[in-house]
Amino acid sequence: MNAPTILAITGGVGGAKLALGLADEVSAARLHLLVNTGDDFEHLGLQISPDIDTLLYTLAGLSNQSQGWGLEGESWNAMGALEQLGGETWFRLGDRDLATHLWRTQALASGAGFLQVVDTLAQRLGIDCNIHPMSEDPVRTTLGTDEGELPFQHYFVRRQCEPAVSAIRFKGIESAHPNPAVMRLLERNAPDAIIICPSNPFVSVDPVLQIPGMWQALRGCSAPVIAVSPIVAGMAIKGPAAKMMQELKLPVSALAVAKYYSERYPGLLSGFVIDNSDADLLDEIGVMGMDVTVTNTIMRSREEKQELAQTVLRTVGLA
Amino acid sequence: MNAPTILAITGGVGGAKLALGLADEVSAARLHLLVNTGDDFEHLGLQISPDIDTLLYTLAGLSNQSQGWGLEGESWNAMGALEQLGGETWFRLGDRDLATHLWRTQALASGAGFLQVVDTLAQRLGIDCNIHPMSEDPVRTTLGTDEGELPFQHYFVRRQCEPAVSAIRFKGIESAHPNPAVMRLLERNAPDAIIICPSNPFVSVDPVLQIPGMWQALRGCSAPVIAVSPIVAGMAIKGPAAKMMQELKLPVSALAVAKYYSERYPGLLSGFVIDNSDADLLDEIGVMGMDVTVTNTIMRSREEKQELAQTVLRTVGLA
Repeated sequence: MNAPTILAITGGVGGAKLALGLADEVSAARLHLLVNTGDDFEHLGLQISPDIDTLLYTLAGLSNQSQGWGLEGESWNAMGALEQLGGETWFRLGDRDLATHLWRTQALASGAGFLQVVDTLAQRLGIDCNIHPMSEDPVRTTLGTDEGELPFQHYFVRRQCEPAVSAIRFKGIESAHPNPAVMRLLERNAPDAIIICPSNPFVSVDPVLQIPGMWQALRGCSAPVIAVSPIVAGMAIKGPAAKMMQELKLPVSALAVAKYYSERYPGLLSGFVIDNSDADLLDEIGVMGMDVTVTNTIMRSREEKQELAQTVLRTVGLA
Repeated sequence: MNAPTILAITGGVGGAKLALGLADEVSAARLHLLVNTGDDFEHLGLQISPDIDTLLYTLAGLSNQSQGWGLEGESWNAMGALEQLGGETWFRLGDRDLATHLWRTQALASGAGFLQVVDTLAQRLGIDCNIHPMSEDPVRTTLGTDEGELPFQHYFVRRQCEPAVSAIRFKGIESAHPNPAVMRLLERNAPDAIIICPSNPFVSVDPVLQIPGMWQALRGCSAPVIAVSPIVAGMAIKGPAAKMMQELKLPVSALAVAKYYSERYPGLLSGFVIDNSDADLLDEIGVMGMDVTVTNTIMRSREEKQELAQTVLRTVGLA
């Protein structure tokens, strides 16, 4: 067959790993990444898009692999000076990372649209595949916690995910419009596969799918929709997904993720990918009507990212 | 006598040198620096106050002496990354300097007044003397040039002072209010001397004096007002003052500066300080009714800054 068109839904770190694997496996022009912007926030007067930037830096080969966020070889002189001034330094902005935020903030202030700004940023960083923020409109994730309502980054970074989460809200989502480029792709029935990356279901994937009309349009497309579980052996590889599941009274398992998706988005998923360590869940997920694939989903090396991408594509006959 | 109260009017580099000399010679609590903000501008979404910052960094002992602006030991990683993104890098913002602008921009955005913000910044940098921006209200210097109307920093930094200047405007000055703390000082007749530092008369001193009511209030105070010539032997020590004088059809000399001040601000100056190399101008300036002091006005070392400060104070019996 011709080079397949792939649409992958992703948040930050975990999703970006599979996105990088996919970028190695399929034609850049036909790889479309649909990205969460619910974590975006304004800080120090700067417009910051953590998931977008993690994805951009990862795809551009600039990301700090061991740290899991930010740029490799980053310096911290602005933060050091800001600390001396008594400024807010809980969200660590490296010197080179600051340039991204300054550039974006100025571009937005000068009237450019958010989607255009991300597109130009991706081009300037030499990224060939298509980066689609979920919406041109601002959506802001806030968490109802035992310390009150917290904006996502305050919960995630400032409070290190310590508060117990009882509710998750996506402010502004009711009036947000889905990214029109993605809607056009779906209307043309262009994707050969839709992949939900192993990102946090509650704060990375849900904001994307909850944009009015989005998940219905994804379901309406004839392409198979395959999700990769972010929960492996009852733990999250990265981030607060497991802790959130406990606090939201869900069992912490790949099975519970599959159930969550299939109950919240009926008929959306046609396949589910779990880790070898969760092979015993195969039948229970299978009875929900999904093709279950058991493989290694832990992506340490570049090769493991590529292998998972290949495996996911193979489940739908595209590799 | 008791420790004298000194009010000094200053722009950036040249004025900041004498301000540092004065800070070494008089009690910090009684030293008041009245500073030009006409060069301020918004850039990359940041609120930047070049003269204020040069003064703050100089007084805090953080300034880059050889470069004449910015911080000693600065790094440039944000600018390097911004350049790679194709962003605007003509105004060089060092990584640590960026912290100052981020801090100020956030403080202003959160509703703090400009005067309060500068005051807090000075405190955080450990500066004990009083920094008074000329006004709480924005005033923006623009230059009529052979390349059209240019905002000051575009003329000064981006175009390296190359365009020929035919007019100087201070946008917003008609409705700007003089710094109330300075007005209170003058109403109380508190200053024992008022010193106009060797800053550019046209773009550093004029904006301060042209704030409605400002120069009349300075003249109304009983303290002597002494200006130090920024022109030495027909040249400016730093910056475009000499080039501007040529383009404005003025002779380039300390005499022309004295005439400019005495014609534009009649009765304001009681003393004028010129460099040894301009000793031949003594009589011509003297007939304008000013006490003329001839001394070394070139401040290379810390000692030369202190010596000039002492000399200026001595001319009015304060040292």
